[in-house]
Amino acid sequence: MEVTRQNFKESLNTVCSAIDEADFLAIDGEFSGISDGPSVSALTNGLDTPEERYEKLKKHSMDFLLFQFGLCTFRYDKSESKYLTKSFNFYIFPKPFSRNSPDKKFICQSSSIDFLASQGFDFNKVFRHGIPYLNQEEEAQLREQYEERRNQSNGAGTPSFISPSSKGPINVPDEHKDFINRVVEKVEALLSNSEKTVDLDPCTGFQRKLIYQTLNWKYPKGLHVETVETEKKERFIQISKVDEEERRRREHAKQEKEQEELNDAVGFSRVVHAMSKSGKLVVGHNMLLDVMHTIHQFYCPLPEDLTDFKEVTMCVFPRLLDTKLMATTQPFKDLITNTSLAELEKQLKESPFKPPTVQCSEGFQSYDTGTEQLHEAGYDAYITGLCFISMANYLGSFLTPPKAHISAKSKLIEPFYNKLFLMRIIDIPYLNLSGPDLQPKRDHVLYVTFPKEWKTSDLYQLFSAFGNIVVSWIDDTSAFVSLSQTDQVQIAMNTSEFAESYRIQTYAEYVRAKQRDKNP
Amino acid sequence: MEVTRQNFKESLNTVCSAIDEADFLAIDGEFSGISDGPSVSALTNGLDTPEERYEKLKKHSMDFLLFQFGLCTFRYDKSESKYLTKSFNFYIFPKPFSRNSPDKKFICQSSSIDFLASQGFDFNKVFRHGIPYLNQEEEAQLREQYEERRNQSNGAGTPSFISPSSKGPINVPDEHKDFINRVVEKVEALLSNSEKTVDLDPCTGFQRKLIYQTLNWKYPKGLHVETVETEKKERFIQISKVDEEERRRREHAKQEKEQEELNDAVGFSRVVHAMSKSGKLVVGHNMLLDVMHTIHQFYCPLPEDLTDFKEVTMCVFPRLLDTKLMATTQPFKDLITNTSLAELEKQLKESPFKPPTVQCSEGFQSYDTGTEQLHEAGYDAYITGLCFISMANYLGSFLTPPKAHISAKSKLIEPFYNKLFLMRIIDIPYLNLSGPDLQPKRDHVLYVTFPKEWKTSDLYQLFSAFGNIVVSWIDDTSAFVSLSQTDQVQIAMNTSEFAESYRIQTYAEYVRAKQRDKNP
Ligand SMILES: Nc1nc2c(ncn2[C@@H]2O[C@H](COP(=O)(O)OP(=O)(O)O)[C@@H](O)[C@H]2O)c(=O)[nH]1
Ligand SMILES: Nc1nc2c(ncn2[C@@H]2O[C@H](COP(=O)(O)OP(=O)(O)O)[C@@H](O)[C@H]2O)c(=O)[nH]1
Repeated sequence: MEVTRQNFKESLNTVCSAIDEADFLAIDGEFSGISDGPSVSALTNGLDTPEERYEKLKKHSMDFLLFQFGLCTFRYDKSESKYLTKSFNFYIFPKPFSRNSPDKKFICQSSSIDFLASQGFDFNKVFRHGIPYLNQEEEAQLREQYEERRNQSNGAGTPSFISPSSKGPINVPDEHKDFINRVVEKVEALLSNSEKTVDLDPCTGFQRKLIYQTLNWKYPKGLHVETVETEKKERFIQISKVDEEERRRREHAKQEKEQEELNDAVGFSRVVHAMSKSGKLVVGHNMLLDVMHTIHQFYCPLPEDLTDFKEVTMCVFPRLLDTKLMATTQPFKDLITNTSLAELEKQLKESPFKPPTVQCSEGFQSYDTGTEQLHEAGYDAYITGLCFISMANYLGSFLTPPKAHISAKSKLIEPFYNKLFLMRIIDIPYLNLSGPDLQPKRDHVLYVTFPKEWKTSDLYQLFSAFGNIVVSWIDDTSAFVSLSQTDQVQIAMNTSEFAESYRIQTYAEYVRAKQRDKNP
Repeated sequence: MEVTRQNFKESLNTVCSAIDEADFLAIDGEFSGISDGPSVSALTNGLDTPEERYEKLKKHSMDFLLFQFGLCTFRYDKSESKYLTKSFNFYIFPKPFSRNSPDKKFICQSSSIDFLASQGFDFNKVFRHGIPYLNQEEEAQLREQYEERRNQSNGAGTPSFISPSSKGPINVPDEHKDFINRVVEKVEALLSNSEKTVDLDPCTGFQRKLIYQTLNWKYPKGLHVETVETEKKERFIQISKVDEEERRRREHAKQEKEQEELNDAVGFSRVVHAMSKSGKLVVGHNMLLDVMHTIHQFYCPLPEDLTDFKEVTMCVFPRLLDTKLMATTQPFKDLITNTSLAELEKQLKESPFKPPTVQCSEGFQSYDTGTEQLHEAGYDAYITGLCFISMANYLGSFLTPPKAHISAKSKLIEPFYNKLFLMRIIDIPYLNLSGPDLQPKRDHVLYVTFPKEWKTSDLYQLFSAFGNIVVSWIDDTSAFVSLSQTDQVQIAMNTSEFAESYRIQTYAEYVRAKQRDKNP
């Protein structure tokens, strides 16, 4: 199901009950870019620590927009021994909801945009009809603004422009005195004729403020003053004669409208809140960036510290499972050669795995995994869920007696909880959200700095005496070089002592220097 | 005429001859945003100096994308006493043209995107089919890359991967030796069988480099080696047996293809080059941002200094005319109340002005100014041109005898050349591109700093003794206050001497402090 601003409100109940009845949820996001700094391969260095990786992604990936969010809910129907799915493809865009709302900026990366364009991504749907959202702080601020206004208003017109200091006769600057006098004349005329309302000419915000203040002070009762926007976005003031009951009615209607506006502004964040509140297992494929973006965009700016990020994440999504991490872990690792989502899905249909029995719920458009719609977030979420089911059920085959269906709550799944795949890190397979991370030995690793002109071959040359080495480029002038034997490290250090064009440090020295830089 | 990547090449001749035959050109641009920093009104402070304004726009507006460029050419047909127009609406997008090309990032501002969306702007056309471009430096770099490759290749295969240092037997790292040996075996088999070509399996860039180097060294003649990309963007190497003539032919075809690739990559910049080379009058409405973006995107990063910017601009566009500046200058100023493009166009159809006689050239889609297509760049360029013609012709009515048609080259127009409208600056109407700027006295201006909580009314209060004042907000805690009389300045300064919550400086002091900050 496609969800845009146009059908969001009427779809929200459907979305929420799909979440509530589900056994697990699968998600996927599409972004306007990946890195606004280093190239993707430098962003994902093979010897990053989890902290370094988190910091780099936070710094270089969060200013992009998560503009398509896929959610697929999976409910197991015992009687029929199959999963029923409901798949949603949300288009997201931070449309400013009023003149004072945050005017968000986001970066686009040409290569990512071009890639999505080549997959038929519909940018018009995003930018014309995307669902808005607020993070928690923005929501709180907006709520406060509305409340403040309401408190000020108690019984006196619609004083959205009145600040507490300005009750009582107000100071109209000379150049506006004529203007305000003419307004007062119009109001006097209204009060003495048989019309119900009078529309003033469009004027500036400052003039509107003066009008509100003046009328509020001169006519505390009997008038309803409201700013109306024309189709051309010009704003003018409309003044109506009202009795007390009518005034109350209007005030009430206005509050209802405000509450609705607030809900509209919170928009897609409400879906994420519902997922979070459900506490259900949330499955994704290579999902670290999806999780970071989701929290960043719909909850709060990401914390400085990886430990704090883990804590926030566990609050928002208490149970996460990454199918890419699962597929690269035993017993799957030996059976699966290619863990990219599309390939994984194909392999998991073949022996020794079994294609999961799923059925699209009534009223939902079904996906055909034969004719792929890859890189549409809703579809990717759907096949991520399929992958999870196949792998979970495969674990059941080791039980005695074997079980064909393993639920999302089974103990067999627990080892995979809250471990997010770390792309291209050689010796740390995952980010452990619910505890400290693995700390592999890096005794055999050297940190080498050199002139910009050097190529990989120069590094091979330099270390040619040591047999196989692995080079992990950091930037133009530095790289990690992993030697095959730890005892070679000392030899390399010794021979390089007097080198002029390059410099070698042990990994431990590198870590120490980096920490000194951080806390001088 | 809509121009995208799909019809760009076949349209280029049409565009260039339209430019060549034109009497003047009108342009307009649409951007992905305006300011990534302060709000637009703080970006355009009423008392900015031209230098300050330039710096702010450079700093806060250039990371957006100019993604639609309108060009309308106007040719005067004497025999029929009317202008013939050709209007082009170009969609622009920096699609990366190869794996090594710059992966440009640009910012989008939600409010701008939302505004364009509400006008029916087609983002899919931009992102799917936008025309790429290179600035001058990128073009030079690419040209150099191609030439370097060509020079290296003289007579020896296609050594795109060979660096000068690596001719001769090469150093294959141990772990790749087997792989390379297998490739050599395949080549030997090819040379001794009747096949013409052999395709190797896809492999990494480093492995391809090793293959190129090895084959180039082992088989300097008789082989053509080429990297081919599959539809799935996998790259593999294809090796063909060739005699010398065939090798030359292929080399030549390759160079032609490279030249074409280069032209494609330069893309839309070629249109701007053609406009520039024509030296024709270029008309725009409120065109400072358009000019800055055009130079920034298609020529070079903007210079630090305003003086240098003026110089560059005059090189690229030797004759510019801003219809907004023209409309706010006498004799038009008194006749025209609203100088926004749409309103201006309407007013210039009415007496004392005359609607210009224009006709759309054959084969071009004509615009109907009745049913507006405002904010499509091609249409905006078109009506900008109409405005220019009406105003130019109006100047002719003062001649004796009056002239109904005033050409774009008339002396009467010259006073308006190269003066770009400065939005919302109170006392400097334009940026003078061909000389120093006006330096109005600002003796009556105060620079006031104060706590964040202050509102405009606090400033009115503070200066209530001085009659009319004008407040120009700089940011949360500072503003310029213009007094109506210069001799009040000293009084204000004296009374504020012991103030604690706020601070007043004269404008001259402010300027001096700012310059100290700049050149400490
Ligand atoms: N000096 C130098 N730097 C390199 C070389 N290869 C890669 N780098 C640097 O290391 C970073 C990561 O390199 P790599 O993993 O090969 O990724 P890629 O450049 O994105 O293909 C690059 O962005 C460069 O800054 C090289 O041969 N010489
Ligand atoms: N402290 C304070 N700052 C203001 C006030 N009005 C404007 N500003 C600041 O001045 C900047 C420009 O203000 P203004 O010209 O009114 O533009 P706007 O905020 O974009 O509508 C704003 O971005 C604020 O930082 C005010 O009443 N109090």
